[in-house]
Amino acid sequence: MKTLVVIVHPNSHESGVQSFLKESCTSLTDVTIYDIQEELSSFDLKKTQELLTSHQRIIFQFPMYWYAAPDMLYKWLEKVLTKSLYQSGLKGKELGIVMSMGQKLSAFQAGGTEHFTISELLRPFQALAYKCHMTYLPPFPISLFPYLKEEDKHRLLISYQQYLTKENDHRFVTSEKWAINRLKELSDKGLINDLDNRLSFIQDTLENNRMELDSLLTTLEEMRMD
Amino acid sequence: MKTLVVIVHPNSHESGVQSFLKESCTSLTDVTIYDIQEELSSFDLKKTQELLTSHQRIIFQFPMYWYAAPDMLYKWLEKVLTKSLYQSGLKGKELGIVMSMGQKLSAFQAGGTEHFTISELLRPFQALAYKCHMTYLPPFPISLFPYLKEEDKHRLLISYQQYLTKENDHRFVTSEKWAINRLKELSDKGLINDLDNRLSFIQDTLENNRMELDSLLTTLEEMRMD
Repeated sequence: MKTLVVIVHPNSHESGVQSFLKESCTSLTDVTIYDIQEELSSFDLKKTQELLTSHQRIIFQFPMYWYAAPDMLYKWLEKVLTKSLYQSGLKGKELGIVMSMGQKLSAFQAGGTEHFTISELLRPFQALAYKCHMTYLPPFPISLFPYLKEEDKHRLLISYQQYLTKENDHRFVTSEKWAINRLKELSDKGLINDLDNRLSFIQDTLENNRMELDSLLTTLEEMRMD
Repeated sequence: MKTLVVIVHPNSHESGVQSFLKESCTSLTDVTIYDIQEELSSFDLKKTQELLTSHQRIIFQFPMYWYAAPDMLYKWLEKVLTKSLYQSGLKGKELGIVMSMGQKLSAFQAGGTEHFTISELLRPFQALAYKCHMTYLPPFPISLFPYLKEEDKHRLLISYQQYLTKENDHRFVTSEKWAINRLKELSDKGLINDLDNRLSFIQDTLENNRMELDSLLTTLEEMRMD
């Protein structure tokens, strides 16, 4: 699966979170970065549309400005989404939204200071995905990035990489497969060297987890029969 | 009450619906038209903010582009909404949205071809109103304008004028007051001449309606007591 990350930011080089996310992509195979701000000045419709149709997952990545994306995304959409593209060109692909914000996540709920959930505020993009016959992925919000501790940043890095490249399902086996493939990729690129040891350690962990899961499933089964 | 209509359109002069709406404003007192496209080229922050703070009702008026406003509105918001403005400058004012679209209204519902209601798709503007401590008015959607019959256009004209200038409540007496004031305004401007006759005719109609309303209210009261 090939993923296209469309960065929407007036100056992504100076943004801490955008730099971190870009850096997180460098070791990923099959991820293409497309920076709208850089591309709009020498915009080529045919090239851009070919880029979109040659990827299976498309990500819009932006900071939230007044509960929407920066204006350049709307300008770009007006140019790019010709009839042939929204009627058939994007059919069956996936659309994901990576949105950073300066409010804490708990503010986005009924009764919270932002009143609405992230899902509600992103309805226009969900509607856009439906219009283009795309699968809409659960949004990926990044809250208060500058205040994250190192450990939280590591977690963010992994879940962001998964958002870009992991199959869109919630099965444990998919995460297992993803983690093992990632390790193999990193090893192929010479970024880790003791792959065999690491893999066998992970294999053991997964094995143990699976035994625990099996026992939990049995308990659940018994409870259901009561 | 003074109303500011912020027109968001790449070329409002060539748009049928925008021309119709502008024309509908000409006889209205206390309505100011502000065309973003014209103003952005020689943008003056202080002047624009004074314009906003000197009006009590602010209307964003635009065609729906990909479930959002044209990009220039977001560009404009980025310039205009400084901290002092969104924290206190707009407090207590009203925000209304006039949105035109090429789909029929019934498409905007769960199970409809557009999946979401107009209210849901406009959540970002509702959140913006809350952020600025403004009262959010029920949105005013205009569907398939080019296909409206003359009679429908007349209805649209009246309800649009009400959306811009009528007090934000649903009492019958407010509509009565609004209609009588409108007639007086039109007469003052020499746009109608037999005001007395018209007013007394309307007075009679309202009188009759009120008797009917009274009798309905009595019936309702009796039903409640059962």
